Order: sequence, then C-alpha cells, then structure tokens
Amino acid sequence: MSDIDLLEIDFEPIGKRVKIKSSQSILAAAQAAGIQIAALCGGYGTCGACKVRVMSGSVSELTSVETLRLNPVEIEAGMRFACQTFPRTDVKINIPPESLSTFQRLQLEGTEEVFDTSESVIKATPLHMPPPTIDDLRSDSLRIRDELKRNGIQISKINFHYFSSMSDWLRTHEWEFKAITRGDELISVIPLSASPLGIAVDIGSTKVAAYLIDLETNKTLAKKGIMNPQISYGEDVVSRIAYANENPDGRNELQGKLIESLNQLISDLCEETGQGAYQIVEIVVVCNTAIHHFFLNFPVRQLGIYPFIPVIDEAISLPAISLGLNVSRGAYVFVPNNIAGYVGADHVSMLIASKINLKEKTVLALDIGTNTEISLSHQGKIYSCSCASGPAFEGAHIKFGMRAADGAIERAQFIDGHLKYQTINNKKPVGICGSGILDLIGTLRDAGIINERGNFNRDCPNVRPATRNYEYVVVPEKDSGIKEAITLTRVDINEIILAKSAIRTGIDVLLIEANIKAEDIEEFIVAGAFGTYLSLENAIRIGMFPDIPLDRFQQVGNAAGIGAKNLLLSQKLRTECDFLCDKTRYVELTSHPDFKNILVQNMSL
Amino acid sequence: MSDIDLLEIDFEPIGKRVKIKSSQSILAAAQAAGIQIAALCGGYGTCGACKVRVMSGSVSELTSVETLRLNPVEIEAGMRFACQTFPRTDVKINIPPESLSTFQRLQLEGTEEVFDTSESVIKATPLHMPPPTIDDLRSDSLRIRDELKRNGIQISKINFHYFSSMSDWLRTHEWEFKAITRGDELISVIPLSASPLGIAVDIGSTKVAAYLIDLETNKTLAKKGIMNPQISYGEDVVSRIAYANENPDGRNELQGKLIESLNQLISDLCEETGQGAYQIVEIVVVCNTAIHHFFLNFPVRQLGIYPFIPVIDEAISLPAISLGLNVSRGAYVFVPNNIAGYVGADHVSMLIASKINLKEKTVLALDIGTNTEISLSHQGKIYSCSCASGPAFEGAHIKFGMRAADGAIERAQFIDGHLKYQTINNKKPVGICGSGILDLIGTLRDAGIINERGNFNRDCPNVRPATRNYEYVVVPEKDSGIKEAITLTRVDINEIILAKSAIRTGIDVLLIEANIKAEDIEEFIVAGAFGTYLSLENAIRIGMFPDIPLDRFQQVGNAAGIGAKNLLLSQKLRTECDFLCDKTRYVELTSHPDFKNILVQNMSL
Repeated sequence: MSDIDLLEIDFEPIGKRVKIKSSQSILAAAQAAGIQIAALCGGYGTCGACKVRVMSGSVSELTSVETLRLNPVEIEAGMRFACQTFPRTDVKINIPPESLSTFQRLQLEGTEEVFDTSESVIKATPLHMPPPTIDDLRSDSLRIRDELKRNGIQISKINFHYFSSMSDWLRTHEWEFKAITRGDELISVIPLSASPLGIAVDIGSTKVAAYLIDLETNKTLAKKGIMNPQISYGEDVVSRIAYANENPDGRNELQGKLIESLNQLISDLCEETGQGAYQIVEIVVVCNTAIHHFFLNFPVRQLGIYPFIPVIDEAISLPAISLGLNVSRGAYVFVPNNIAGYVGADHVSMLIASKINLKEKTVLALDIGTNTEISLSHQGKIYSCSCASGPAFEGAHIKFGMRAADGAIERAQFIDGHLKYQTINNKKPVGICGSGILDLIGTLRDAGIINERGNFNRDCPNVRPATRNYEYVVVPEKDSGIKEAITLTRVDINEIILAKSAIRTGIDVLLIEANIKAEDIEEFIVAGAFGTYLSLENAIRIGMFPDIPLDRFQQVGNAAGIGAKNLLLSQKLRTECDFLCDKTRYVELTSHPDFKNILVQNMSL
Repeated sequence: MSDIDLLEIDFEPIGKRVKIKSSQSILAAAQAAGIQIAALCGGYGTCGACKVRVMSGSVSELTSVETLRLNPVEIEAGMRFACQTFPRTDVKINIPPESLSTFQRLQLEGTEEVFDTSESVIKATPLHMPPPTIDDLRSDSLRIRDELKRNGIQISKINFHYFSSMSDWLRTHEWEFKAITRGDELISVIPLSASPLGIAVDIGSTKVAAYLIDLETNKTLAKKGIMNPQISYGEDVVSRIAYANENPDGRNELQGKLIESLNQLISDLCEETGQGAYQIVEIVVVCNTAIHHFFLNFPVRQLGIYPFIPVIDEAISLPAISLGLNVSRGAYVFVPNNIAGYVGADHVSMLIASKINLKEKTVLALDIGTNTEISLSHQGKIYSCSCASGPAFEGAHIKFGMRAADGAIERAQFIDGHLKYQTINNKKPVGICGSGILDLIGTLRDAGIINERGNFNRDCPNVRPATRNYEYVVVPEKDSGIKEAITLTRVDINEIILAKSAIRTGIDVLLIEANIKAEDIEEFIVAGAFGTYLSLENAIRIGMFPDIPLDRFQQVGNAAGIGAKNLLLSQKLRTECDFLCDKTRYVELTSHPDFKNILVQNMSL
C-alpha cells in the first residue's frame, strides 16, 4: 500500500499530523502520532473519555454506543468517540483538553493572541546616528532623545541604571543600534541584529513556569518550568509566612531563593535559544498575593493574620536590577494588581486571559488550588472570593494521593461493573492524583458504593475495614506499583468533601452577592492544571460545581501564564487590569452571614 | 565703669554683638568679638583693607585718610575704615566679605532664601488613620492613598523601596504618622514628632560640603565639610578619569569612595543634631561634570577625550538606595543639569543662586577654580564656557603656594614703600595662598617691580637671582615660619599670567559671542572661596577682570552650595534650571576662531 492511499489526520490544537489507513480509528491515529488520548475502556466506546470533534473531512457514521452516550448538542457540534470513528477522507480533528492526558494537556498553551504594535509595552527603533563632533557637542542622552524625536518617538528620560554602560557601548557599536523604549523612557540599546526579549513568569506555590518571548515578533521562543525553591520553607504559603515572621532574615532568604531560581531559569532559557540575557528588557510576574509579597520582599506579617491585609493592591513596575535579576540593567518588572490577601495577581492575570471583563455574559471563573480563587462577573460588576479548598486535589492529605506524575491514577470509571483506571504515561499505578480522586469519588457515589455522606456501603466488593473506618481497594496489591494495595479511605473522602464544599460555597456566596442563580451563569471557566484535567461530569456529580449544561464550561489550562504572556505584550491589557480591579468587589467568605449554613449544606455528595 | 556706659556694636551679616567703650575703634570691637577683619597696616588707615559700612547709629567723623582713600560713592553708602571709626551710640555695622579673613568668609552662607510651601519638593502631611478591619480590607497602600486624597493630596504611587518596611512600621505606630510625599509619590512615613530632612551637597574636586536641612522649616540644622576622598586618585579630575579608564574596577572604586564619604557626612550630621538618617528623604548633589559622572558611576572615557561629551545634560532624580546612600529607603537624589563636559551642575546651581536667569540686566557670573566656568547673560540668552585656568590660584604650581590655611599670606600691599602682608589666623607665614599671590603680583606690578610681561626690575630691593630667572623675597628667612625665605618667582608669575589670561580670554570670547563690550556688563558675579576673597582691584589691575566700576561686582561666596540648598527646597527652582539650560549656549573656547589671538593679547600684566 503506497503513501497515496493513506489518509491524513490533522490534530488540533496540538498541531500534529499523521497518515493512517481508513481501517484505523482516530484513536489509533492519535496513538500513532504520540498523542495521549484518554481511553479507559480500551476502545469499546463504553468509557466516553476519548471525545473529539471532527472539524473537517468525512468520517464513518455514528455507532450505537455513541448515539447512546453523546447528547444531541454534542452530536450537533460534531463530537465523536475517537475509538468509534474511522476516517473516509483527510480529516481535521480537534481534541478538547479533557480528552488529553495530563502531561499533554499541560503543554497546551492556548492560542497566542495577536496584539497590535500600538499596544506594545516595549518598542524597538533602529537608529543610525552621527557621532559627536566639535560642532555637535550634545550629550549622549540628548543626542539619542533628539534622534528618537526625529523618528516620531518622544521620550522624557533615559533609564538611570542603563547609563552606566551606554556611552562606551554606543561608541563600540559606532552609533548604530536599536533603541528600546518603554513608554516615555529609553531603557536599553541593543545591536541592530538582536531582538528585545521579555520573560513572563507564573510563580505558583509549587511550580514556577517561565516563557521567553521575542517582543518584536511576539513569538514564544522557549518555556521552562521548575519547582518553587521556597517549597523547602513549607508546602503552603502560610508556613512560609510563619518562617518569614520567625526568622530575622527570613524574608530576605525567601526572596533570595526565588530570585536565584528565576536567574537560573533566565540563564537556561537564553542558553537554549542562543539569546543574551542583556536582551531581556521586560518581565511580567504573576503569582498569588503571598508569593507576590515574598518576591518583592514586602512585609508579610499582616498578610498572615486576620484580616489578611496586603501591602498593595495596585500594579507595580520596578527596575529588575533592584530585585537582583540578571537581565538588562534597564529592564522593568511588571506585577499586576492584587484583589485581596488571598486573591492575587495570578487570578487577575487569569481573568484577563479569559477576557472576563470584556464579556457581557454572566461568567464565573475559578482557579482551583490550595486556595481556590473564584470571580463572578455579572452586569458590569465582578465579585471575587478565595476559598480554603486545601491541598487534597494536589494529592496531599490523601492516603495514596500524589501529584500528577508517572503512575498516578488520573482517570477512573466503572465499566461493565469493573473499575477501570488510567495512569499517567500508562505506568504501573503508584498513587492517585487530583483528577483520579475526583473520578473515584464520583464513580463510587454513582455506583452506590458510598452514600451522600461519604460513608461506604460495607457490603460492596472491594470495601474493607481500615485503620480508621473503611476503605475502597482501587488497585489490589498484585497490580500495584508500590507493593501494597492502593485504596481510597473514608478519611480521604472527607478531605474531598471539605475541599469541594469549600469551592461550592464560594460559588454559592458569590451568586448570592450578585443576586442570581447558578443557571444564570452563561460561561463557567475552569483554569489551572487540575481544573483543566478534572472530569466536569464528576465535579458536578459530587456537587463541587453547580449542575449547569456542560457546554457552558471551558477548561482553559494555565490561563494565569497565558495572561502573563499577554501582559508582557500589551499595554492596553495592563490598563484593563486596573479597570477590572476597579469594578471588582472582594467578598470575605468567612464573615459572610450565609457562609456557615451554605458550607454545611454543601457537605453532602 | 558699668555695663551701662558701654556701647553695643552689632556686626552683620555674622550676627555677633559686642559691648565696647566709645574710645575703642570698630576694628577693636570686631577683634574683641573674635571677628577677623583684614588689617594689613595695623590700624593706621593706610591699607584700606578694613572697610565696613555703618548701617545705623552714630559714629565719629570721617578722618583725613578715609576722605583720601574712599571714593564718593563709598562715602555716600556709609563706608568707613573700621580702624578709623569710633562709635558714639550703639551701632550696627555691616562687614562686606572682602574685609573678612578667609575662614570667616567661608562661614558666610549668604542669606537663606524663603520659599513658599507651594514650591516645596517634599510635603509632610500628618495623618491619623483607622486600622484595617474585616469591614475595611483595603491594602495598606490604598488606605494611605485614600487618606491622603481626603487631605487634598493626590498620589499615583508609593515608592517601591519604601514598602519593605512600611506595613510593620504603620502597625507599630498605630497608624499615626507624617506621610512624606514628593510630587505624586509617597516616599516615606515618619513619626509625627519627626521632621523630614534634606541634605544639600556640593562636591568639589577637593572638598565636599554638606548641609542638613529641616524640610518643614527650611532651616539649616548643621553643615560639615570634608576632603573629597578621590584626592588620592589624583588632584584633578583628568587624572581621576585616567584612573577610571585604566583600572577595570576604577569607576566603581571612585564612586565607592565618594558614597562612603557622603555616608560618613550624613551620619556625622545626624549625630550632631540628634536626628535620624531615616528622616532624610531628599538629597541634592551639585558638582562639576566629571565628579557628577563619578558620583553616578557613569562612563567617563568619552568625557576625558576631545570633544569631551557628557553622558547626560538633563537633571536627574534617582533613588538614593540605588547609590548605596544610608538614608530613608524612599529618598531621592536630585542632580541638576549639566551644560557641557566642563560646565557642570555646580555652575548651574551657582547661576540659579545668583538668579542670573531672572535678571534683565547683562550679568556675567564666574566660579574660579582649576577650571573656571563663566556665564554671560544678555538679552535672554546665556553664553557659557570653561577655561583651563589651572590650579595656581589654589596654590599649586607656585613655589611657595599653599591652600588657604593657617600661616598662608592672604593679603599683601605696599604701604609707605614697605610690603605688608597678613596671614591666615595671624600665624607666622608659611606660604602664599591664591588671594595673596594675586595681591603680590598686583602690588609688585603697581610698584613697577615687575613689568607688563612679568619680568622683574632687577634693581629693586628684595629682587634676587633664583634657580631659574629671578624672584622677589616676600618674607625674609628670619620672619618666615618655614626656615627659609618665602619668595615669588618669575615662574610663579608666569603661572598666574597663564591663569588670569585664560579667565580673561573666556570673558572676552563670551563678550564677542554676545556682541557686547565689557562696559556693557551691568553686574559681575564672582563665586567660590578664592573668588570671594580675592581683591577685585588687583584682579582688575593684572587684567584678570575687565576694568569696570567696582560697584558692579558682587563676591557671593559658595553660591553653588547655596544653590544646592535652594534646589532642595524649591520645585520651581528645579524647573528654572531647565529653563536656564535651555537658553544657554555652550561656547567651546579652544575651537573659537578668536581664541588664540585674544589669549596672547591677555598675556600681559
């Protein structure tokens, strides 16, 4: 069979193509292309995990399992099960994030937005200038300002830190260079052959992700993630705040570790792409309010105690050199606005990436983590809150919980009465990550193995007594990668009940504040790694999310990171941050009169 | 004799009072008050050095020597010789600076100007604020901004460097404090009981003078001078530039020494006045362009080579913390505009203190030093130049030359055919300082002992052969404090001829550029220590200054320092600096077509 008889399958948004025979399913094509689509049932159409959308081309008819399990809206939209669908022609397939395995999903960065150059934060202007002579004794500064003016760029000052090397550099480069301006300030000069670069950084409590961007083409040149080195001072920000308070040099230490890591990231990204760190002239950092304060070496004492007051809420631009970042001496760091002590710049960045402020619809957006930040946009106002959802979805406080890593159970479902699960990278199971835990509880509840209070039906198979109460055996010892059975305990279930009820209570209180009902939410945006990979059906089933039509949900990946990239490029978006925060009202949940009642109501599964 | 019979003599501008008998002269009264009035002739009215002005009260009639030596304008103005005048009632006496000894003159700071608070660079607003509560979760930053707005002060940001300690501080001080604002920025918060302070610094190549100012009362609390520590890298800026160019870390070293000294000055001034360095929120630094570049760690290579291009000419405000100054973390350093590579911010500061830009008259202002900066203001334009006048007037390159210190001959004059001299603090003569050298040459020329070329009349007494050419014995060995005769050599005279002709050529070229004649100069301002103490008659006699009426001259002391103090207090004056520099044209003498001719013409005495 020649190449000519093969059909081309184009997978979006991953951008991979593969040629297959018409007797091969789309699932097989994806596997051949190295794309990890979730497929718990082994391709029988019974798990429904491998949903894809046919964007163009012709494929085989709907099978009976698909007709049964896909709803009319999905069918109308071209949704299919990849395992049940065979190509008839070349086809273009869209894989929604929920059908991808964790790792591949984490690599999805969303579409890069295009910004008009008039919005640019940083401008590069190539200049070819005459050197000073006895008849033209203008200072270097005035000489450049005059030349920029001739090029239509009016500056009012030159960055002080940059002067220390500028004059020698200009003469070595014979007055030919790109002038890098930021608003009305000249911040750097670079060779004509170089591009000005930017770094967008999303500092999470656990992980730090950085993107290196060409500020002339707006292209992402490279990205890199590392662990947040502050982990060694405490897993959560509360213990890090305690460390800062209890140790005289604690704050400096915590900041120092972070700066050191960022410098390593910057150096790695430059090495990987063959760029110079001197080219980096703008940095955007998004993070939660505590990390924000650590990064800027702001006092955290008042942030750690009731009523959790941040030092600032406004956006801030400051010289990168004053933080000790090894980039251009004239570079600035921009950190967006905070909303409150526990609703930080990373949430603002996520809201900006989700364009929540530009939509006339009623939109709810949340980012699930140890603290879950939720914002509800309704009729020109935004209501925001933070819920102490705890680290259960990150695998902490769960007996066999783990982060999303090789061998973590990431999907689980009863198929024909048997519990089927999928592990990350198909390794032997070693634990359960957030999405797996959510699936397990959803599917066990559905099967009646646990009741609405989270108690086990002790008569069910695989339910057995445990040290405290009972537990469900997810993986028997013989199949386990850790030489013991992997179980879900009654205590684990309680942790999840606490987490999900915290999140749901946050949603409910915001709905009360906006005086609307859950069904009024027209768009429900779920951001973050776990949020993007969780099963919406199970999240609704256990009551974490309200029961609204699935097509109103969007799982948008690392929206905070995307927001940071966009904020690196667009001055207009920075202004949007101010507008957004101006119309945002922070709702302190714990002091809300309905909080306790709602929380108790939400405790059932 | 009871106190009641004594008359009170009030000396201005020194502000000292003394009671004397009516049989004592004003000179004796001054000496009793510890005021060193120049008196070469020992009180016989023959030297004319002890001129004072009677401002109020009644005194003895004019004596015959006074009638002979004072001109009608002086007599009209109430001028008298202190040694010839006896009080009849309590009197108030003004001592013009030229009649004071060097040291006392250096202590004259000129009248402190009064500025309207609307001009203030720094504002202090007392605030008593409610602390955050669960019903008022505003960030610290917003809380202060809102409160300032209620007090009519709109700020757009809070100084980044200040945040690192602000929140803890506010809570310790229970939200009662003075908010220190600079334009639209909050830069510090201080206790209600404290005042915001400023430091004005005049960094000369040789000396550094600093003034500690209360920015609420505008009063000078203390002043202190030290040697410029860069002296050890070369007496003049040219050798320091060479050091910076030749040593990899040279610039950092030169800057470091300066910052270290300023920190010492700041700490001394605070200790002396019982103030805290944290109260210092604004610093003004004036200096020549090379020192300016060293202070800011700017490149100096291009400043040291033809055509001597400065990095910047505009004024600059920068965080004091970025220079390593131990003051408030939010403090700024303001450095005024430069005019050119050899006409610096200190000259601009002097011009501002002299209000040259506000006068409609034709004014010439100069500051004599190793480089003498001259500006001529005429019909709305200012012409500025710098002359390489050399260090002769500072005592360098002169056989027995010395700086103005104990035992330096500071005044000399032929009285009744005998050379009379006066030394600083009446110590045994050990050398000759600038004003003494000028007096000697003027008086020797007047007496025909040297001719217009500077050659000695070998027949005159005290002229004797020297190693090279001839020399004049000023102090015979027996009267000398250094165990050898103190002489003025032919070589010394040449040095002075070079210096004075450089200065006069600068004046002449500016007059040509403005297309006016010397007699058109309506006001002639001489600034600086030497400039203030020199004898105007002798400066005119040797051709250093043009021969215009003496009453057009003003000797204004350390006008650069006064300008720095004023710039610390008035935003309006900072704006004036820009206006002044905008209408100033720098004239490069060495490339002026008439330069060489005029220089040669000015070589005669």
